[in-house]
Amino acid sequence: MNDTLIVEKEKPKKLRNGILLTGLPGIGLIGQVVGRYLVEELKAKKIALLLSPHFPHQVFMTKKGGMRLIKNSFYLCHGKTHDILILLGDIQAMSSVGQYEVAGAVLDYCQKLGVKEIMTVGGYSTGKISEDRRIFGVTTSDPLRERLKKQGVIFGEARGSIVGAAGLLPALGKLRGLEGACLMGETHGSYVDTVSAKQIVLLLSKYLSLKVDLKRLDAKAQESQKVLKKVQEEVQKSMEAQFEATSRNVSYIR
Amino acid sequence: MNDTLIVEKEKPKKLRNGILLTGLPGIGLIGQVVGRYLVEELKAKKIALLLSPHFPHQVFMTKKGGMRLIKNSFYLCHGKTHDILILLGDIQAMSSVGQYEVAGAVLDYCQKLGVKEIMTVGGYSTGKISEDRRIFGVTTSDPLRERLKKQGVIFGEARGSIVGAAGLLPALGKLRGLEGACLMGETHGSYVDTVSAKQIVLLLSKYLSLKVDLKRLDAKAQESQKVLKKVQEEVQKSMEAQFEATSRNVSYIR
Amino acid sequence: MNDTLIVEKEKPKKLRNGILLTGLPGIGLIGQVVGRYLVEELKAKKIALLLSPHFPHQVFMTKKGGMRLIKNSFYLCHGKTHDILILLGDIQAMSSVGQYEVAGAVLDYCQKLGVKEIMTVGGYSTGKISEDRRIFGVTTSDPLRERLKKQGVIFGEARGSIVGAAGLLPALGKLRGLEGACLMGETHGSYVDTVSAKQIVLLLSKYLSLKVDLKRLDAKAQESQKVLKKVQEEVQKSMEAQFEATSRNVSYIR
Amino acid sequence: MNDTLIVEKEKPKKLRNGILLTGLPGIGLIGQVVGRYLVEELKAKKIALLLSPHFPHQVFMTKKGGMRLIKNSFYLCHGKTHDILILLGDIQAMSSVGQYEVAGAVLDYCQKLGVKEIMTVGGYSTGKISEDRRIFGVTTSDPLRERLKKQGVIFGEARGSIVGAAGLLPALGKLRGLEGACLMGETHGSYVDTVSAKQIVLLLSKYLSLKVDLKRLDAKAQESQKVLKKVQEEVQKSMEAQFEATSRNVSYIR
Repeated sequence: MNDTLIVEKEKPKKLRNGILLTGLPGIGLIGQVVGRYLVEELKAKKIALLLSPHFPHQVFMTKKGGMRLIKNSFYLCHGKTHDILILLGDIQAMSSVGQYEVAGAVLDYCQKLGVKEIMTVGGYSTGKISEDRRIFGVTTSDPLRERLKKQGVIFGEARGSIVGAAGLLPALGKLRGLEGACLMGETHGSYVDTVSAKQIVLLLSKYLSLKVDLKRLDAKAQESQKVLKKVQEEVQKSMEAQFEATSRNVSYIR
Repeated sequence: MNDTLIVEKEKPKKLRNGILLTGLPGIGLIGQVVGRYLVEELKAKKIALLLSPHFPHQVFMTKKGGMRLIKNSFYLCHGKTHDILILLGDIQAMSSVGQYEVAGAVLDYCQKLGVKEIMTVGGYSTGKISEDRRIFGVTTSDPLRERLKKQGVIFGEARGSIVGAAGLLPALGKLRGLEGACLMGETHGSYVDTVSAKQIVLLLSKYLSLKVDLKRLDAKAQESQKVLKKVQEEVQKSMEAQFEATSRNVSYIR
Repeated sequence: MNDTLIVEKEKPKKLRNGILLTGLPGIGLIGQVVGRYLVEELKAKKIALLLSPHFPHQVFMTKKGGMRLIKNSFYLCHGKTHDILILLGDIQAMSSVGQYEVAGAVLDYCQKLGVKEIMTVGGYSTGKISEDRRIFGVTTSDPLRERLKKQGVIFGEARGSIVGAAGLLPALGKLRGLEGACLMGETHGSYVDTVSAKQIVLLLSKYLSLKVDLKRLDAKAQESQKVLKKVQEEVQKSMEAQFEATSRNVSYIR
Repeated sequence: MNDTLIVEKEKPKKLRNGILLTGLPGIGLIGQVVGRYLVEELKAKKIALLLSPHFPHQVFMTKKGGMRLIKNSFYLCHGKTHDILILLGDIQAMSSVGQYEVAGAVLDYCQKLGVKEIMTVGGYSTGKISEDRRIFGVTTSDPLRERLKKQGVIFGEARGSIVGAAGLLPALGKLRGLEGACLMGETHGSYVDTVSAKQIVLLLSKYLSLKVDLKRLDAKAQESQKVLKKVQEEVQKSMEAQFEATSRNVSYIR
């Protein structure tokens, strides 16, 4: 396996007003909590996997004695106004080369399904706790900016850079004619922020005319955090082993 | 040589109930000891080499003044019920990208020969010495789980992740329609565990209806350990030289 | 996106006496200041972008709530005697493999447009402040050396090596039959040297029969420095985060 | 430029008893001194260059104001009994992936020219100064071993591994049906050993029926050492700059 690979479990029809939402690990875990919650509440269906040689070369053992690859997954659900593709995953690629390769594969798949709009979700770390939990946005499209402004998204205040898929997907998508934006929930940055995640779920449900009940979000967020922590610990363990091995001792052959 | 390469010395007929067993370096050296022992006891024949640019760029000098590449090798033997392909090697690829590439090449070759089942062998490190040396399993296939349970393999108790080929081969194999499992011998983790290796040889000989005499296993394990130690020392030497060179001094050009 | 990519916004006609000038980050920021200044003064038009998986996987947020990829850009202007292609960018590829790949893509594009001459611009660090700010040159072509000598460029005094695009582009260009040189402004090396940059702008305007007013150069240089500093800080932040993560803690998944 | 590239300056006819000799940097600088000396004494002609994205992304400035890429070069001369291809270079690829890629490109080129035998030259470091300066060999071919034994090469005494091209070229060449050996001059290891280099030149001139005058070898060796030292210093400087940049400060953009 030399390249990032998308394994389709189902081949859906061309999407109607197709939009991609991302729920990947990042600041305040906001993207991931939002993505997982929407998948569950909207009963979205898993339709494809994304595997990559730029993910760690590890598999996780499950409680039932199964094994699962480190992967990202695509889920699909049909809203009143939009067909919504949601990308979930416990990990992002570990190098620039890997990040660009995975982003390219995601966009290829989106275009194949007829997605027109790329909406990534992340956190915007301020180092303090804000009451409002505003939602900041950046976008590659003026019409999309107007649509999002109507929902209360604040443009032109966030500063700095966005690392990883949350930035690459809309920015590279633009080169393919896709509208794109990144929504960032205001957050402290050093803990999981379900308040901010809720704000984004609310905003997205209005923007996409969805009915989403928020009351299970806190419980779901805790679960997400637990899963991610385990993934991180396992990946970290093997990375430390490799790091030590590369620089020093004999035990690197596992 | 830009890609992992399989050099076939012989082209066997399609395998009958083909199964891949792996004997690669890992925890407690269990996989490697089991694999090497089976190759010897079953008089398996070397039919192919696997070379990779993700292995160290070194060759070993032999006692007779020859040289051998760092490689993995495939051996084939014909049991009563199964044709058994065994993958041996002193090394695994040194990066995620390399691990996925090598796993893909192994699976391509397995499919070409008609292998239906991927059985990797490793150790499960507990940090203590258990009397029983239980055998834990994870699998991608319910029927295979049932077959292995009958042999006493314990499912659902091992926790965490499996790093490298022992996990990637069955997990990626599943995407190609191959049944797969990883057998892990319970072991302390910081020394070569021939007791645990013996348990797995026993289990495999029952599972595959083989006649295997266990009495030479201890001697064979010592030999494996010696070989691997040498390989590790040599690879380590050159890695340290490179590491120093990259970070500091002038001597990196060798 | 697996390879360096050139996105053409316009397809110009074959260039007349086509020459490539580079304005990339480097010693004393001379190349970048010269390049940006020429683009502005000559009202050169952006005709293509260069994206690469060897650039950082980040996007920058703009003041207006937009986002921009880390990229290089090609600008075109038509002088009296030459059609001039200018390559600007805030970054160069981060590895040898990336540097060669990007250089190859730049040269492919130059050849497609009909560029005949590659002129890179950089600084030559002496560790002291010289009154004259001489301009040193190295070249792959005897006729070009003669032409540049007439403009006062000093050949045969600079020593050592040139790292990155400023060296690779003319040297690799030679293998494709393109004339090439690197112009290096004498400079201290540890601060932005607009005096040296002015000398090179003067020289290029004579060499290419251009009318360039120098009076806005200082202001422009300050702007360049500010932009680059921001880019560097953002890229640095994410690189440090990755570095820490690889060697130590759990927070690497962003 | 995404792959290792061979640039042919001439297309010679199929070689008669074609043999490749290598003169690359390594232990005691023996290979490089031998190679350079033979090229000069035999008036071998440069017929091709080898460039690689796995070499440093730097060019060297020459005394005359020219620039040269970091590269390897192929020289050809016609002996009484053999056509001899000599590979010279100041550098080897900097990673395993690069080493395998370059070795593959060298072997492709050798096969195209009709080379039948790969003879690499290196040093065997003993940490002490031996009077005899014996020559150790390892080989992939029994007939070649016999031919070399007749010349006094000692087989079966050298231990450990050979890092880089000196080992990879004959070992990978074997898979293509080429005979191969590595000759190693016994040497202390921490200084340039012209005595040992002389022994190998002598041996090769007998083995290949060449007339080689040895009296300029010492002077030539000093020159080689000077050239290599400069190359190493320059490459080292840029690697240190990158290393610091990656782990720490802001100045990595050059």
